[in-house]
Amino acid sequence: MDKLEGKAVIAQGGGPTAVINQSLVGVVLEARKCPFITHIYGARFGVRGIIKEDFLDLGQATSHNLNMVAVTPSSALGSTRDKPDQEYCQRIVEVFRKQNVRYFFYIGGNDSAETCRIVSEYAESVKYDLRVIHIPKTIDNDLLVTDHCPGFGSAARFVVSAFACLDLDNFAIPGVFLGVVMGRHAGWLTASSVFARKLNHDGPHLIYVPERPFDTERFLADVDRVYSKEGRCVVALSEGVVDAKGQPVVMSLQQNTERDPFGNVQLSGRGTLGDALSDEIKNKLKIKRVRCDTFGYLQRSFLGVISDQDASEARDVGETAVHFAQRGLPSGSVAIRRTGDYSVDYFMTTLASVGAGTKLLPPEYLLGDNNISEDYKDYARPLIGQIPNFDRLIAPAVEVK
Amino acid sequence: MDKLEGKAVIAQGGGPTAVINQSLVGVVLEARKCPFITHIYGARFGVRGIIKEDFLDLGQATSHNLNMVAVTPSSALGSTRDKPDQEYCQRIVEVFRKQNVRYFFYIGGNDSAETCRIVSEYAESVKYDLRVIHIPKTIDNDLLVTDHCPGFGSAARFVVSAFACLDLDNFAIPGVFLGVVMGRHAGWLTASSVFARKLNHDGPHLIYVPERPFDTERFLADVDRVYSKEGRCVVALSEGVVDAKGQPVVMSLQQNTERDPFGNVQLSGRGTLGDALSDEIKNKLKIKRVRCDTFGYLQRSFLGVISDQDASEARDVGETAVHFAQRGLPSGSVAIRRTGDYSVDYFMTTLASVGAGTKLLPPEYLLGDNNISEDYKDYARPLIGQIPNFDRLIAPAVEVK
Repeated sequence: MDKLEGKAVIAQGGGPTAVINQSLVGVVLEARKCPFITHIYGARFGVRGIIKEDFLDLGQATSHNLNMVAVTPSSALGSTRDKPDQEYCQRIVEVFRKQNVRYFFYIGGNDSAETCRIVSEYAESVKYDLRVIHIPKTIDNDLLVTDHCPGFGSAARFVVSAFACLDLDNFAIPGVFLGVVMGRHAGWLTASSVFARKLNHDGPHLIYVPERPFDTERFLADVDRVYSKEGRCVVALSEGVVDAKGQPVVMSLQQNTERDPFGNVQLSGRGTLGDALSDEIKNKLKIKRVRCDTFGYLQRSFLGVISDQDASEARDVGETAVHFAQRGLPSGSVAIRRTGDYSVDYFMTTLASVGAGTKLLPPEYLLGDNNISEDYKDYARPLIGQIPNFDRLIAPAVEVK
Repeated sequence: MDKLEGKAVIAQGGGPTAVINQSLVGVVLEARKCPFITHIYGARFGVRGIIKEDFLDLGQATSHNLNMVAVTPSSALGSTRDKPDQEYCQRIVEVFRKQNVRYFFYIGGNDSAETCRIVSEYAESVKYDLRVIHIPKTIDNDLLVTDHCPGFGSAARFVVSAFACLDLDNFAIPGVFLGVVMGRHAGWLTASSVFARKLNHDGPHLIYVPERPFDTERFLADVDRVYSKEGRCVVALSEGVVDAKGQPVVMSLQQNTERDPFGNVQLSGRGTLGDALSDEIKNKLKIKRVRCDTFGYLQRSFLGVISDQDASEARDVGETAVHFAQRGLPSGSVAIRRTGDYSVDYFMTTLASVGAGTKLLPPEYLLGDNNISEDYKDYARPLIGQIPNFDRLIAPAVEVK
C-alpha cells in the first residue's frame, strides 16, 4: 500500500447524465474515509474550476446532502466544454502542486480521458507525483474498452419510454412520426428504441444510426413502404446520421452551423434535422400528418427516469476509482467488465486507450440499414431494466349487420 | 331507476393522454356489470368508428387485458380529429338506432362535448331515446365547469420533471434554455413548470402563457435581465403564445402553417417557435449558448410518468359516467368538484356548458407578464403529486491561498 498523502480534487466534464452525481458521491464518501487523503475538493465547472482555483470543500458537505445529490440528475459541480491544451494542463498541474493535490478524479467521456492523459503525462514529466483517475460517463455509451458507460442505461430508459409512448400515440392518430435521439458518432442510444416494440406491428418501424450511411431517397422509400403496409410509420433517427461521404446530414439541411471548441457541429437544442426530413416526407410522399419530436436535453438527465442498475454502477465506478487510487495503481480509467448474465466487475485501463476514440455499434448489433438485432437486445436489456408494462386492447371486432 | 335496455358505445376523441384508458376501462368494467346494458362496444378511431360501424366487442375483452390497457398511455381505441357536422351526427344516430345503442360515452375535450351535444339534440329531435355522456380529458386542463381535467396532472408531472432536469442541466452548462410546452389557448400546463423551482435561483426564471400577450422585444429584455443577473436563463414558453392582436406568435415565424379540420394552426410536432426565438436571442442579445427543446408529444402520454391522483380520477369519471347513465339522468358531461384539501366528487353538467369554450388561467394565478402565483400552486399541487426529490450540492467554497 502506497500512502501518498495530499488532497484529492474531483471534477465533472462534458454533458450531464442522470446518474453522474452517483459517481461524484461515490468518490467523495470513499475519499472521506481514506486517512491519507487530507481534503476532498470539488472543482466547479470542470477543469476550469481547477485553473481558477474555484473549489468546494466537499469534506464539509453533509452525508444527507450528498445522498440527495446522488439521486439528482446533471453534474452538481457544473461542467465545461473547455478542451484543455498542453498549456492548460500545465496550469492544472501547477495548481495541484501549489495545493498539494495528489489525486485527481475526473468524471467524463473520451475528451475528459484525454485531458486526464495529458495532465498525468505532464505531471510525470515534471516529477510531480499525481494519481489521475478517469471515471467513465456518457449517455452515448461510446467509450472504448469498458463494456458500457454509466449514464447510458438511464438515458436508454427514457428513449424506450418515449418511443413506447409515441408509438401508442401514432397508433391512436396515424401518420408518420420521427423521433430524433442524441448520439453524435454512435447509435447505441438510438438503438435502444427497439425495446419499445412489444407486439409485432409496434414501432419504431425504422431505426437509423450513424454507423450506416444515411441516404434521404432510400429513407423516403423506407417510410413509404412501411406507411403503405401499416398505415402509419414511427422512425427513430440518430441526430448524428451521416451521408455516404461522412458528412452530418444536419449540415446539408441547416445554413449556419454552430461548432463547439472540439469542432463538433451543434446537433441538439434545435429541431433542424427532424423538421427538414418531415418536410421531405410531406412534400415527396404526400403524406399529410407528419410529426417530429427532437428529444433534446430531456433524454440525458430526466428527473425520475433512472435505471437502478445504471445508478448502482455509477456509484460503484466512483467508489472503485478511490480504491484503485488508494492501492497505488498508476493513473488510468475505471472500466466495467461483464462477468455474467447479469453481473459486472471493475478494472483499470490506460487513459490513452479510452481517450483515443469512440466505440461504434458492432455490425452484429445491426440488421440491414434500419433495424437492430437480438444480440443488441441481449447486451442492452440488463442496463436499461424493466420498462413499465403496457398493452393493446384485445377484443374481437363486431361484424357489421 | 330508468331501465333503458340496449347497447352502449364508447369512443375516445382528440389528443391522447397518459390516463385516458383509465376512463375507458372505468366505463367498460362498470357497464359490464349493468344488467340492462346488453353489449359494450368500442368505436375504433373516435366517432369515425361509429359511422363506419367499426366496433370492438369490449364485453369479450379479458379483465387482465383491460387492467393492462388502463395503465397504458394513449387512446387504446384510437382517436380522430374529425369534427362532425350536423349530417355526420345524424349518421351517428342512424347507426345507433340500427344497432339499438342507447348509451354513448365519449371521452374527449370541448370539441368532443360539442359533438355529444349535437348527437344528443338530434336524437331527441327524432325521438330516439339515447343517453349521451361526455367524459372529460385533456392535458390542456381548459374545460369549463370542471375543477380540472383528467390527463392534466400526469402531463404536468412530465413538465415539472422536464424543467427540473433542464434547469439542472442549464446550471451545469450555463446559457439560455427555452422549453416549449403544449397548450393552444390556455397556459395551465406551461404554468406547472413553476414546480421545478426548489431553491431561490432555480428556473424556469421566466414563464410565458397565452393569457398574456407576447411581445418579442419585451421577451428579449426579460431574458437579457435574467441572464445578466444569474449568468443563465431558463424559459418556459407555451406553444400557443399570441401577440397583442391575438395572432399566434408561431404564425409570424413560419411560412406554411398547417391547419386541422377545426381550423387550428399546427403548433406541435416541429420546433419552429422555439428555434426562431432562439435565433432572436443569439442574434440580438449576442448570447452564444442558446438551446431549445420543444417537448412535443412526449408530454401528453409519457410511459411511466403518471400522477396517481390523476389516474384514479380518470378511472372515476369513467365509472361515474355509467352510474349517471344508469340512474337515468339526462345527457351531460361528468365534471369534478373540489370538496376539500384534497378531495373531490363528481357531478353532471350540461353538454352545452362544456362545449361552449375553454377555461383560461384566471388573473390571480398569474404574476406579472412572466410568472405564476402561489394560488396556482395551491390549486395544481394535489393534481400533480410528489415530484422525485433533488438537491444542489451544499459545501463551503475553498478560499484561494
